[in-house]
Amino acid sequence: MGRWNPNARGRLEQAALELYDQRGFEQTTVADIASRAGVVERTFFRHFADKREVLFGGSSALQDLLVQGVAEAASSLAPMDAVASSLEAAEVFFSAERREHSRQRQRIISANRELQERELIKFASLSTALAEVLRGRGVSDLAATLTADAGMAVFKAAFERWMDETHPRDFRALVREVLEVLRAVVAHP
Amino acid sequence: MGRWNPNARGRLEQAALELYDQRGFEQTTVADIASRAGVVERTFFRHFADKREVLFGGSSALQDLLVQGVAEAASSLAPMDAVASSLEAAEVFFSAERREHSRQRQRIISANRELQERELIKFASLSTALAEVLRGRGVSDLAATLTADAGMAVFKAAFERWMDETHPRDFRALVREVLEVLRAVVAHP
Repeated sequence: MGRWNPNARGRLEQAALELYDQRGFEQTTVADIASRAGVVERTFFRHFADKREVLFGGSSALQDLLVQGVAEAASSLAPMDAVASSLEAAEVFFSAERREHSRQRQRIISANRELQERELIKFASLSTALAEVLRGRGVSDLAATLTADAGMAVFKAAFERWMDETHPRDFRALVREVLEVLRAVVAHP
Repeated sequence: MGRWNPNARGRLEQAALELYDQRGFEQTTVADIASRAGVVERTFFRHFADKREVLFGGSSALQDLLVQGVAEAASSLAPMDAVASSLEAAEVFFSAERREHSRQRQRIISANRELQERELIKFASLSTALAEVLRGRGVSDLAATLTADAGMAVFKAAFERWMDETHPRDFRALVREVLEVLRAVVAHP
């Protein structure tokens, strides 16, 4: 107890992702993760509530950033542009150095139905949070819901393309690009 | 066995919804449902795989209708309009007589987190299926994904408004109305 573990959290995260990726999420125990990270099991629980939190612990930080971005966007911005500028600012989470980490995480999630469901729930929560902050900006209930859903569609598509090695562009540029495609497909023909 | 039960399925569905609504989904057993419907437990399992299927059994019929609608839409229609015409055709599932049933189902789902998650997964599957049939129409991968997500956003908002007693309009009209609001919020300001 109290043993000094420099960057134990980072080592635990890396160990967990490697094991989930190699053996599968279900087949990995907290003991396995702690052992590979060179810490005791108790240290894992000091940093994460459970195995799943290693994969989803970042989502509340992302949600906070997106919500704050919309809340603080210039009042002159249209709702969709307030959301888009907030999505662009999320590039801090999606730097080139994080790409391999995100890909590994995505492989783990794609291989496990329960984790896929958790990811869907995370996106739905993000959309609900965005709609709420838009209503706080005076946007009507329906327009807020639709803008938030449209924003999440842009986010998911930009994120997928950002992970895809055939599209090695930065996240901010991808958000803009995807939004333009959304505008084109939704517009009156 | 082989006892003739006229409309046993309908009576089981009604009994289940009443019990889920009154006692909660978790607190209701298959024995309770069968008893209220006046059939033996085995009859329940002849019609439904489990308690949850009473609530979600209709979703594959909806998905088939939406997918077929997009597949068979005039090739001159833009992707978003093919999806919209398919959503409008889903009005057969959302007639005035079904409204009370849908409201009851929604109350049950809103009261149970596991059911809410199941509903999210159903919407995600619908979106994936729509994107696939759009790609089959030659729509690019990104445009297909975004059109499908936009279509599901319209569907969800139209469905919510259709259930809401302050908007007693028909489903088809609501789809058109919601799509126009989406077009307005997504358009360049």
